[in-house]
Amino acid sequence: MSLAIICPGKDPSSWIQAIRSIDPELEIQVYPEIKHPESVEAVLVWQHPKGILSDFPNLKLVSSMGAGVDHILTDESIPEHLPIVRIVDDRLTWSMTNYVVMGVLNFHRQITRYQTDQKKKVWDMSQPEIDVRVGVMGVGALGYDVLEKLDFMGFPVFGLGFSEKDDFKFPYYTRDQLSDFLKEINVLICLLPLTPDTEGVLNKELFDQCEPGTYLINVARGRHLVEEDLAPAIQSGQLSGAMLDVYHQEPLPQDHPFWEVDGLTLTPHIASVTNPKAAAPQVLENIKRLKANEPLKNVVNRSKGY
Amino acid sequence: MSLAIICPGKDPSSWIQAIRSIDPELEIQVYPEIKHPESVEAVLVWQHPKGILSDFPNLKLVSSMGAGVDHILTDESIPEHLPIVRIVDDRLTWSMTNYVVMGVLNFHRQITRYQTDQKKKVWDMSQPEIDVRVGVMGVGALGYDVLEKLDFMGFPVFGLGFSEKDDFKFPYYTRDQLSDFLKEINVLICLLPLTPDTEGVLNKELFDQCEPGTYLINVARGRHLVEEDLAPAIQSGQLSGAMLDVYHQEPLPQDHPFWEVDGLTLTPHIASVTNPKAAAPQVLENIKRLKANEPLKNVVNRSKGY
Repeated sequence: MSLAIICPGKDPSSWIQAIRSIDPELEIQVYPEIKHPESVEAVLVWQHPKGILSDFPNLKLVSSMGAGVDHILTDESIPEHLPIVRIVDDRLTWSMTNYVVMGVLNFHRQITRYQTDQKKKVWDMSQPEIDVRVGVMGVGALGYDVLEKLDFMGFPVFGLGFSEKDDFKFPYYTRDQLSDFLKEINVLICLLPLTPDTEGVLNKELFDQCEPGTYLINVARGRHLVEEDLAPAIQSGQLSGAMLDVYHQEPLPQDHPFWEVDGLTLTPHIASVTNPKAAAPQVLENIKRLKANEPLKNVVNRSKGY
Repeated sequence: MSLAIICPGKDPSSWIQAIRSIDPELEIQVYPEIKHPESVEAVLVWQHPKGILSDFPNLKLVSSMGAGVDHILTDESIPEHLPIVRIVDDRLTWSMTNYVVMGVLNFHRQITRYQTDQKKKVWDMSQPEIDVRVGVMGVGALGYDVLEKLDFMGFPVFGLGFSEKDDFKFPYYTRDQLSDFLKEINVLICLLPLTPDTEGVLNKELFDQCEPGTYLINVARGRHLVEEDLAPAIQSGQLSGAMLDVYHQEPLPQDHPFWEVDGLTLTPHIASVTNPKAAAPQVLENIKRLKANEPLKNVVNRSKGY
């Protein structure tokens, strides 16, 4: 039996190293150099080419390289019976929050303005802070942690979710109260799960309801954003800028307009990155359970989507 | 009677506006346009030219524009009997902490690397985080707040102060344990008060004891740093870079080498800025007390230095 690693555009070497350090015997094949597809019984995937898993006649387990599995569930060619498992790691939440807080503070304290001033040798002490009121769309484990940390730091915070909630610790709005939510805030953070319901939620209509100068941070999925609506909203001043970590197509194509839009800060889907050292034991544990015919851990419920 | 505002290099207009909105009658003269020095009974100062206060024969009160008064106490021409008062404002602590946490997160998540990648249209997901262990020199109100916020965010933190402390909430080192302290950390934050004892504490000898690649954040006073020692420490890799908000000479002179050192992020003394709206009532309250011959508020103890 062998494990195939399929993560086009992503360097698999730290995963290979982490797996080898625990199980030096396991045969690993890395896409696209797969010489013995018939020996592959488990795959470890991140944004695999759709349909490719049918190349492996003896496949018994699909393991995501991260917490998210939307990149797997959108491949309709994966047979119903094939179990899909994901990585569960508290450090993912920690990393995500640190990234988001960095984005909020860089807007609040205008780091890019001072970087520009430094290049021009300009000393300008005027108006050193932008008052911020932070809204988080999506108040699951990730969104809640962001709210809690920013609240502890003394920022006004507001949450928006898609279901009614009693006794939520912070001011809370449901989707039908979106425009009231947007009136309260000038930093908008998207941490929603990607479902047919939330796809494209960050669009012109929403931007038009924001307070002028609102700053956007999208760390959820690229498809939450209608990409062609973003630059016009920044150029009109409706948004003062955005920090994006996720895109419709990743890696972001060389000819994508985002690279050169003023006011956009781009990162290459690193806001919350699975640490192979922490995650490899989970992958190997499930391979062991597969061989021993034991119940797998962190199996995804396909109808729920996570 | 009139108030003279003396803050060369700093725009006094928001102070004037804030004072006028409370007391439209008060005569304000702004340095260097002081036409009636004999009418000046109170001065509001930030880095005034040394010796200049002797131009005012009827001066009765020196008010700092901020929490710090080292810029006043170093003027030995100020008579012993003249009371010096300062601004006390919780928001100063809040702003300082936000700036420092921003600096820590930008190092941890390597924001400048991604900004450079964006300019070159490079998509590089490798090693997205630098593990950080944060050391704070100076554990007064400001340093303690930084330790507490970073601890809440889940970062390992360490404090260093100049006196023995029992029951300190975080790992604590005294000055004679400096090298042990430096071994624990890779982000060094200076929040010490400036005294003859702490001047020049950030120097080659200290940098040589740091773990290679340590990142420096100085938000205290420019004179804590031996400026000529910094670029060599960065260029040798002993420090991986620094974020500075304070300098020996402010505004930073146009020909100062810091402007162009790779790995340096400079801001123009804005980490923690007194908000004139919040502070003007304190200034006017002391002028009122002066006229009424009542005890002043927030008087500085010159021998303590704060």
